[in-house]
Amino acid sequence: MHNRKIPVPEFNFIDSTLREGEQFRGTHFTLDDKREIAQLLDQFGVEYMELSTPVASPQSAGAIRALADMPRGFKLLTHIRANMDDARLAVDCGVDGADVYIGTSEYMREYSHGKSLEQVIDIGQEVIAFLNQQNIETRFSTEDTFRSNFADVMTVYRAMDLAGVDRVGVADTVGIADPLQTYNLISNLRDVVSCDIEFHGHNDSSCAVANAFCALQAGATHIDTTVLGIGERNGITPMGALVGRLYTCDKSLVEKYQLCLLPEIERVVAEKLGIEIPYNTPITGEVAFHHKAGVHTNAVLKNPTTYEAIDPEDFGLPRIIDVAHRLVGRNAIRDYAAGRGIRLPTQVLNLVTAQVKLMADERPITLEDVDRILSKLMLPVDD
Amino acid sequence: MHNRKIPVPEFNFIDSTLREGEQFRGTHFTLDDKREIAQLLDQFGVEYMELSTPVASPQSAGAIRALADMPRGFKLLTHIRANMDDARLAVDCGVDGADVYIGTSEYMREYSHGKSLEQVIDIGQEVIAFLNQQNIETRFSTEDTFRSNFADVMTVYRAMDLAGVDRVGVADTVGIADPLQTYNLISNLRDVVSCDIEFHGHNDSSCAVANAFCALQAGATHIDTTVLGIGERNGITPMGALVGRLYTCDKSLVEKYQLCLLPEIERVVAEKLGIEIPYNTPITGEVAFHHKAGVHTNAVLKNPTTYEAIDPEDFGLPRIIDVAHRLVGRNAIRDYAAGRGIRLPTQVLNLVTAQVKLMADERPITLEDVDRILSKLMLPVDD
Repeated sequence: MHNRKIPVPEFNFIDSTLREGEQFRGTHFTLDDKREIAQLLDQFGVEYMELSTPVASPQSAGAIRALADMPRGFKLLTHIRANMDDARLAVDCGVDGADVYIGTSEYMREYSHGKSLEQVIDIGQEVIAFLNQQNIETRFSTEDTFRSNFADVMTVYRAMDLAGVDRVGVADTVGIADPLQTYNLISNLRDVVSCDIEFHGHNDSSCAVANAFCALQAGATHIDTTVLGIGERNGITPMGALVGRLYTCDKSLVEKYQLCLLPEIERVVAEKLGIEIPYNTPITGEVAFHHKAGVHTNAVLKNPTTYEAIDPEDFGLPRIIDVAHRLVGRNAIRDYAAGRGIRLPTQVLNLVTAQVKLMADERPITLEDVDRILSKLMLPVDD
Repeated sequence: MHNRKIPVPEFNFIDSTLREGEQFRGTHFTLDDKREIAQLLDQFGVEYMELSTPVASPQSAGAIRALADMPRGFKLLTHIRANMDDARLAVDCGVDGADVYIGTSEYMREYSHGKSLEQVIDIGQEVIAFLNQQNIETRFSTEDTFRSNFADVMTVYRAMDLAGVDRVGVADTVGIADPLQTYNLISNLRDVVSCDIEFHGHNDSSCAVANAFCALQAGATHIDTTVLGIGERNGITPMGALVGRLYTCDKSLVEKYQLCLLPEIERVVAEKLGIEIPYNTPITGEVAFHHKAGVHTNAVLKNPTTYEAIDPEDFGLPRIIDVAHRLVGRNAIRDYAAGRGIRLPTQVLNLVTAQVKLMADERPITLEDVDRILSKLMLPVDD
């Protein structure tokens, strides 16, 4: 039915931290912030970076010009409405490519730009032709693709493909798409156009990573991501989480990207935004490699792969075996004691484990409590 | 290819906040905590609640007995290893059902319990037969299903179905499954067994919600969730996010569950754990209904559905139109001013918008800054 493995060399990250990420509540990147983030992502190895439209404000235009002049491996994009003024300004700012978008759903056509499908195609062709003349890489994206009429979007995509666009973009603008729907739409699109296919997915119903993955399985070539998923509302596909998803299928990802930079990149961006990295973030969340229940810790001590889809070492991170709680198992206590140079005979081990459970039933406990139980049982004192 | 709509009356939430959630780092629920959480989830309308095995500690067993005696609409489950001692203790604690599990992958068979496939089936049949005699609802789950041999798990499921189990469980224990894989496995399983099908998915590669949704599309009847997704490592399918995913397909969910209780339920659990509700949480995250970019706010002011898959009012929550940043559009400024009783002529509106953008290019700004710009332009003063 589908390719479980996605050919790692063939897909591209379009990092949109400096565009979609600017639409996150409280993002106020300075020009220096933008340079710092771009340099880190360049080292990580993203293939593209997308910046806010130069129309947004003077600093927005200035940032594009500044990053265009920076030594870098990625291609520089900006995100513009489908109109000639925006396209001319983008070219003037020195981008390598332009991500052109326009709404195609009835919602967007009625409440956003008010254009008919024919008008959408006309303006799209004009803008793409102009950008092609300027040797600018082009993408044409249908905003709100999944609430658009299927015949309409396929008609627009085919027209843009024939107009010479480098890439068409599928956008789940309101975060409503589900994985099978995404897989189906992009599979069909793969048969309609010969150009590259980009996917942009919002996370309102928690499928932004899954949908991006299904898009790649169906033949998409480019995925929009941001650091920590920041973006309008609750954001889009987070780069780190998609990296995790792809890594579980093919560890050769470690050869394509500098995965060990991921924790630093997320830390830098989180600091600038004044946000915490959510506890449930794959790979870099505080608990991503935290093992607690007895059955789990017992097996992980023998072979971490038993309960780990991802090897933390590939990201320069440690794993944690937690022993200070009521679900603790004997093997985790034995291992913890051994790490402190204490060898526990079976009966003592059983006693220590039972005491830890009892104490944890009474109140939250810490490693110091476990240490105290251990030392009392090993070195009885008179108190 | 698949049912886009899932019949809302036919699926069940198995809330595992008091079992899987206890495996989250730093969870130390007291008996009172457990009662409070159970009461809230009962009001919300979850069909089942699963508690930690009574074998874990004396309080764990005590909590099951206490909740068994509580007036409630949900069925009470506990999660036990496939062995007779655990099963007998579960029955003694007064549960309505037992969620029996055993690892079926080579990893689990080698590093966890060391049993052959035949031994797994034998012990499963024995435990299920015993529980059936006691009129206990039974589930048999194959831990680490997605790294198990497909023939093996189907053989186990068929044997358990024939042994009279009420429900078989598919478990993505290490968070490695992808949506199409989940859909395929459960579609096939739907043809192999006649009993109900439960899905339990970890979130290590960010697909726990998407996989649960695909499981339902493929014919699963029960989904394991926890409040805020708390669980071993970075957790499992969060109830709120899955509610959001299901709601985008069928708003009649508002008739089945008390959706307005979701924010309070998450707040109570987050407080007990000392964690923040992550910014990127669907529905209840701080930015879930936060609109910022000019194109977005312009359309949302005309019709919120343009950029909202979920109506915040159904969850008792507000939306936010943000105007204090460089991406602001004229229509958002016009609406903001109108809300403060100020009608802006077009030229003044353009000027205010340009000034907000310029100021936001210099530094992070607040609504007070926007107010200051507005008042200066409306009421020129001499300073």
